[in-house]
Amino acid sequence: MTPPVLALHGGCGTLARELLPAAEWDEVRAHLAQALRAGWGVLGAGGSAVQAVEATIVVLEDSPHFNAGHGAALTSEARHELDASLMDGATLQAGAVCTVRRIRNPIRAARAVMERSGCVLLSGPAADDFAQAQGLAMVDNAWFTTPRRVKALADIQAARAAGPTAQAGPAGAMRPISEADRHGTVGAVARDRAGHLAAGTSTGGFNDKPPGRVGDSPLIGAGTYAMDGVCAVSCTGMGERFIRHVAAYDIAARMRYAGQALEQASDHLVHDLMHGHGIGAGLVAVDAQGRVRAPFNTLGMARGWIDATGHLHVATHQEVFDAGRA
Amino acid sequence: MTPPVLALHGGCGTLARELLPAAEWDEVRAHLAQALRAGWGVLGAGGSAVQAVEATIVVLEDSPHFNAGHGAALTSEARHELDASLMDGATLQAGAVCTVRRIRNPIRAARAVMERSGCVLLSGPAADDFAQAQGLAMVDNAWFTTPRRVKALADIQAARAAGPTAQAGPAGAMRPISEADRHGTVGAVARDRAGHLAAGTSTGGFNDKPPGRVGDSPLIGAGTYAMDGVCAVSCTGMGERFIRHVAAYDIAARMRYAGQALEQASDHLVHDLMHGHGIGAGLVAVDAQGRVRAPFNTLGMARGWIDATGHLHVATHQEVFDAGRA
Repeated sequence: MTPPVLALHGGCGTLARELLPAAEWDEVRAHLAQALRAGWGVLGAGGSAVQAVEATIVVLEDSPHFNAGHGAALTSEARHELDASLMDGATLQAGAVCTVRRIRNPIRAARAVMERSGCVLLSGPAADDFAQAQGLAMVDNAWFTTPRRVKALADIQAARAAGPTAQAGPAGAMRPISEADRHGTVGAVARDRAGHLAAGTSTGGFNDKPPGRVGDSPLIGAGTYAMDGVCAVSCTGMGERFIRHVAAYDIAARMRYAGQALEQASDHLVHDLMHGHGIGAGLVAVDAQGRVRAPFNTLGMARGWIDATGHLHVATHQEVFDAGRA
Repeated sequence: MTPPVLALHGGCGTLARELLPAAEWDEVRAHLAQALRAGWGVLGAGGSAVQAVEATIVVLEDSPHFNAGHGAALTSEARHELDASLMDGATLQAGAVCTVRRIRNPIRAARAVMERSGCVLLSGPAADDFAQAQGLAMVDNAWFTTPRRVKALADIQAARAAGPTAQAGPAGAMRPISEADRHGTVGAVARDRAGHLAAGTSTGGFNDKPPGRVGDSPLIGAGTYAMDGVCAVSCTGMGERFIRHVAAYDIAARMRYAGQALEQASDHLVHDLMHGHGIGAGLVAVDAQGRVRAPFNTLGMARGWIDATGHLHVATHQEVFDAGRA
């Protein structure tokens, strides 16, 4: 039996510490810990890495603090269009949905696509219909809306109306567009007792995104990849860059073909390739030996993992908190 | 000045020779040659690889003989949902559209997304609206329909209704589901006078596909990839497998990280990885030195290229025809 491993991220677009009261940061960390416990419970009961990743992400989707499911970003038309993907490293089976509007937990729809559609990626209303036919929980689009996203969209659209100077200017009455407005995503990676790897990612995209825009999160190879014997990766950051660099699979390819370690391959992506272009980027990843990496090049990245002694570790900025035993 | 290079494919789902009259095969080859001439004209006039790939694919989209644009496959609901992507190896900029229904030439929309949307991938009606706003030619969905696809869909749906035995049985009144029903796609790769690479792919998916299904063709890394100094690749085959293996980028990664030649990397994908699983697969690719590969593991693959002396070569099955000077 291989010791299970679990890690998650809640996006590399963390707000500056002073922009939220301490009690809210406490709640963010509590939700990260709750998500870890959900996935860890699955692994402890002998569940698969795929099931653990799904269970972890469902908690993050249901939390208002993360840009996925409830709490997702709004498009320029003030609607939610959600993307998610899930990949099983044991079989290379994968499932994903993009621009869905009514599925409460898009990561569950990604799993249903993987297991029951014969496809890898379903898009738009047809994906909503598929999820409904599969018996998944459906909601009105407004269910995903939170006051924070409504305010963020209004701020961005007001800043755009006021011209580029206002956006770049010092923070005043109008908050400048932050990484938090741009790079929200949640994701998880796991290794189960049988040694199998899995990865999943779910997102609302970014505030004020154009309708129909699909980022890296639902794209196998870009935002998500898992391959037994190599690694499982879930990315967060400026999706278009992750697509062009096929980021998640590039980490696996560097390990497969160039003999790089997970640390080297994932740090290169986040700290050299993306950072060198001023691209906010982060990820969580686990390799076949159970080593976890969670690099980011932004102010912070909501993240968490469970160490070999069963202790939960959660963080939003540099400081890491011990959240007790799982 | 680097000598320009151009190659194309019209999908690895070629019908058996005896299923079409000789005059139709002549016309298929004539359209392949016409597409090559369109792209070659662009390269000869000093145009970019991106422009040449677009010009080549437009001709294939407009031909009724290929599963892209006019002549595209029908979904299970007897509609057309088209996917396309385009990538510039010089900049790693890329653009793509998926499940679009009204854009006459989806490859043109992919270019517009790349150059003018700030996104890489736009999906569904919003992508149609974007293309229309960009001034691209729009058509009714029925414009894409050809008698051959209507008949194929009817045959497939009748065979499904009759049960699995009828599908597997000998060809009689009911034609069995062929590779041609499954793997239609068009694509092109080019190297321009400046030595830059580009790749593009366009498809209607497969006959009787579920609504909302997105294959590998619009996914950067899966069906299409281009990176200067490495290679440009456009794939055709069972899209879900290409997505899981991140096929187009995997060829680039084997070249970048394992030092493989294009021939080795692309032949491995088509003849070992996919063929070993019974997956119909093909591709066209060009490397930085201008070497062209067009492997396929099916009965045939519509394809064409222009050699260093300026002669066109086109083929649908094993035999290659010299179609004269470009």
